[in-house]
Amino acid sequence: MSKITLLIHCPDTSGIIAHVTSFFYKRQGNIFYIDQYVDRENTVFFMRLECEFTKQTNIRNIKNEFRETVAEKYKMSWEIYSDHTKPRMAVFVSKYDHCLYDILSRYKSGELEVSIPLIISNHKDLEQVAKNFGIPYYHIPATANTREEAAKTQLELLQKENIDFIVLARYMQIVPKSLIAAFQNKIINIHHSFLPAFAGAKPYHLAYKRGVKIIGATSHYVTEELDAGPIIEQDIARISHSHSIKDLILKGRDLEKIVLARGIKYHIERKTLVYNNKTIVFI
Amino acid sequence: MSKITLLIHCPDTSGIIAHVTSFFYKRQGNIFYIDQYVDRENTVFFMRLECEFTKQTNIRNIKNEFRETVAEKYKMSWEIYSDHTKPRMAVFVSKYDHCLYDILSRYKSGELEVSIPLIISNHKDLEQVAKNFGIPYYHIPATANTREEAAKTQLELLQKENIDFIVLARYMQIVPKSLIAAFQNKIINIHHSFLPAFAGAKPYHLAYKRGVKIIGATSHYVTEELDAGPIIEQDIARISHSHSIKDLILKGRDLEKIVLARGIKYHIERKTLVYNNKTIVFI
Amino acid sequence: MSKITLLIHCPDTSGIIAHVTSFFYKRQGNIFYIDQYVDRENTVFFMRLECEFTKQTNIRNIKNEFRETVAEKYKMSWEIYSDHTKPRMAVFVSKYDHCLYDILSRYKSGELEVSIPLIISNHKDLEQVAKNFGIPYYHIPATANTREEAAKTQLELLQKENIDFIVLARYMQIVPKSLIAAFQNKIINIHHSFLPAFAGAKPYHLAYKRGVKIIGATSHYVTEELDAGPIIEQDIARISHSHSIKDLILKGRDLEKIVLARGIKYHIERKTLVYNNKTIVFI
Amino acid sequence: MSKITLLIHCPDTSGIIAHVTSFFYKRQGNIFYIDQYVDRENTVFFMRLECEFTKQTNIRNIKNEFRETVAEKYKMSWEIYSDHTKPRMAVFVSKYDHCLYDILSRYKSGELEVSIPLIISNHKDLEQVAKNFGIPYYHIPATANTREEAAKTQLELLQKENIDFIVLARYMQIVPKSLIAAFQNKIINIHHSFLPAFAGAKPYHLAYKRGVKIIGATSHYVTEELDAGPIIEQDIARISHSHSIKDLILKGRDLEKIVLARGIKYHIERKTLVYNNKTIVFI
Repeated sequence: MSKITLLIHCPDTSGIIAHVTSFFYKRQGNIFYIDQYVDRENTVFFMRLECEFTKQTNIRNIKNEFRETVAEKYKMSWEIYSDHTKPRMAVFVSKYDHCLYDILSRYKSGELEVSIPLIISNHKDLEQVAKNFGIPYYHIPATANTREEAAKTQLELLQKENIDFIVLARYMQIVPKSLIAAFQNKIINIHHSFLPAFAGAKPYHLAYKRGVKIIGATSHYVTEELDAGPIIEQDIARISHSHSIKDLILKGRDLEKIVLARGIKYHIERKTLVYNNKTIVFI
Repeated sequence: MSKITLLIHCPDTSGIIAHVTSFFYKRQGNIFYIDQYVDRENTVFFMRLECEFTKQTNIRNIKNEFRETVAEKYKMSWEIYSDHTKPRMAVFVSKYDHCLYDILSRYKSGELEVSIPLIISNHKDLEQVAKNFGIPYYHIPATANTREEAAKTQLELLQKENIDFIVLARYMQIVPKSLIAAFQNKIINIHHSFLPAFAGAKPYHLAYKRGVKIIGATSHYVTEELDAGPIIEQDIARISHSHSIKDLILKGRDLEKIVLARGIKYHIERKTLVYNNKTIVFI
Repeated sequence: MSKITLLIHCPDTSGIIAHVTSFFYKRQGNIFYIDQYVDRENTVFFMRLECEFTKQTNIRNIKNEFRETVAEKYKMSWEIYSDHTKPRMAVFVSKYDHCLYDILSRYKSGELEVSIPLIISNHKDLEQVAKNFGIPYYHIPATANTREEAAKTQLELLQKENIDFIVLARYMQIVPKSLIAAFQNKIINIHHSFLPAFAGAKPYHLAYKRGVKIIGATSHYVTEELDAGPIIEQDIARISHSHSIKDLILKGRDLEKIVLARGIKYHIERKTLVYNNKTIVFI
Repeated sequence: MSKITLLIHCPDTSGIIAHVTSFFYKRQGNIFYIDQYVDRENTVFFMRLECEFTKQTNIRNIKNEFRETVAEKYKMSWEIYSDHTKPRMAVFVSKYDHCLYDILSRYKSGELEVSIPLIISNHKDLEQVAKNFGIPYYHIPATANTREEAAKTQLELLQKENIDFIVLARYMQIVPKSLIAAFQNKIINIHHSFLPAFAGAKPYHLAYKRGVKIIGATSHYVTEELDAGPIIEQDIARISHSHSIKDLILKGRDLEKIVLARGIKYHIERKTLVYNNKTIVFI
């Protein structure tokens, strides 16, 4: 038994669903999940589909046939993932440990269908945490001056380890353009506010100053513009006048952990599609 | 231009989606919404689909053809609704006015695609509210002794007005079996707790006594067993030790209004399917 | 039996609570609610207290004695409210009816301890709604040119009716400075976003464009700077890629109603204190 | 500088707040937090107060004086805690690791002001997790037959380590009466449902079967009656028809972690008071 996940977007027209589903039906595939969305403003069609094949199936052949008989006809951007391959994820951290602990605990608990070949940091602080969980830790200092050089070292490491995507688990550094270019829509950041409110530095301080009654966190794909990439997930917590900045930071930790974890899961499970700086998330 | 909504459930097998979507494709229908769900435990397939026809389309023909070429083949329970017909809704009330005000305000604001030919009550208290909103109000007393007779009067009224479904907006009476039988999965009740906790009378008193930190409300279809029918929607609100029973009742009003309104909307928009005393809600 | 509510803020120092509570104890008052907050950054003390007097009590005397023996000593800004006087509230509307319906329904249900002597609007659209609920409706057109003149007419009406505070129930007009000056921290607005995100016009359109996964609403006191006044209450709703702008507007209606209603209630129940463009809300 | 936290409950009468606050004022204490609650039904008064002493203060003397001049007069149940002593917490686990990981991560991050001298388990599975975090792990098998004997071993260990309170982090065993008696209102359990719904075994299975639209988790103090002790904290997550039991279990993990962590924090920070099988939580 093998399972595939198909992600599509293409210009909207009638007949796409009928053709795609017939394609798999004719090949004895059993579609057990299908979700679609039409952006009517831009007339774009999006689809996510999961299909099981009970017989021995050659994924490569399926892909080739799909391209020739369906994808080209409808000018699709598309991807077929087999469930036999786990994505490979790198984690970038600085000094805050709560998101790292959360990710590694979920990983050890078997909650994340992923492998984590390495953790990269601009500081040494969290090396022991990595060691406790048995993950290689690379300390690559990255100041304003050495950022590009550091990026090169990072990129080599990531390529050597065949990394599929990167998670910035409160990585307090600007990500270099070269890295963003190499991992388009494949770097997930957690920002500690409900974007677009309080983009940039010290969002909890700004939230406190403005006197908001809710704080939030946002996981998003990283683009060149700071904190302006496609949003994957957001959540909030209620606060009151009685909470100090320190309280906000503490309350925010739980938000950050959960919102980042959800973002990572959606990405791993191929539930996200990026279009026009927005995400379609097929939950 | 005309639009139809199709609801299906049937034994799960492969090919259903392909056949259904091809059916509409061949008739120049443009499917712009499709959602499906497979209950793998019971191997049942559920689907909701919206389709637009740009040409003049005869819905009756579509229905006949669908039955013959698709529905019978897959042993489907199915329904096709045209958007040209608004469902007709009756509201039952007793003395509490908050849910009634909420429903009528939404109705007047154009939020509910429905017509409301009548309000039925076992009390006279809310007659003036009905009058202010211009809806006919029928006072049908219903005590334990006269319940069956009252049911007969109610049923006649409902049939005379071609009522499609009934909303119990805090109707503090047991609904007679004859009415439930005549409106299977078509009577929506609001219960003021997160069922199955605190079924039956005085849930806020019980919640206070137990010292819970959240209260809830549940909208559900009415079945013969009290507060045990298929749940359509639930929501909750946080409370603390400092809230009295009166506070819970007040806080609960907002919950009841919203949870009932959502239940009504899902029903009107044909988003609910009932199976095995549970609802599939295609949101 | 009479009940008073005391609100205080003053420079923080030790002994305030002891002195205030002793003051009421000595006058046979039974304090059954007390809440306080210290802004440690600015060393300001805030307190809200409710006290019952079983004997016939002269509130005027209590106030005078409190001023002389406690308030002056600690340089307090303070207010004592008797529960014998209901605040008088004016509602301003334009064309949207959902918040107006919600407020009037709560009013009729006895949920708001307030009197509503008048509704003011720059349009005639909602006159019938006011009529149905039996509230006088004043149509005062207000264009950019006539705004100041309209403000004069509004102010006269408000003063003639002894209005204590104003609710802008989706009033789509800039409030003139003269009105803001006359009702400092006494004009409550509902803004349809989680401020500070999406201040200004068309927040749902901006939220859609940015691709956020939550939308919000904010009730706040009106100050001269648009959408920048002290926040009283906020809440949010989850959305997804599949929601159109129209969906956001519909979902937002429920948020707006609830967040505005909570803001109004906190204000009526004397639970809010404004300081440094923030609110202390003693819930 | 030293800080104390005072917790009180006693029969309600007037003057308590005045006397308590005057007591600390006269001893140069600066009360910077006070919260109180009156259960009017049972006429019981509850209070929590935090006070700083800038001078060298002898806590023992303060306690004695408080007893003699205030507590006895009002027949108080009371406790004064100094912030110089960290509570000592034991963790009981079985095979599920997510709550344990969460607690230990928070502990290592400095989020919990507590010491954890030991982890006790009826299984060996999580020994390695304990080792990674450097906490002693005791494997004490406990079957139905050996439960009482195991309880004796546990009790000795707990007493030897001066344990103040116990956390059951998904400990899948009935806690023996002797342990409950020795740690009254000092054993915190996490139950994976919004109690009182789905008490007992397999709540996620029951939730799935009933077709609820929200699932929950509850942290509570353990009493002899299963899942019926005073509730400390609850929270919920939305689910839909499309979630399998496995999905509920996965979604529930995050709920369990957070609801347990909050319960632990409230307990550590002396924010909880138990009365009549309910908790007062001064948040």
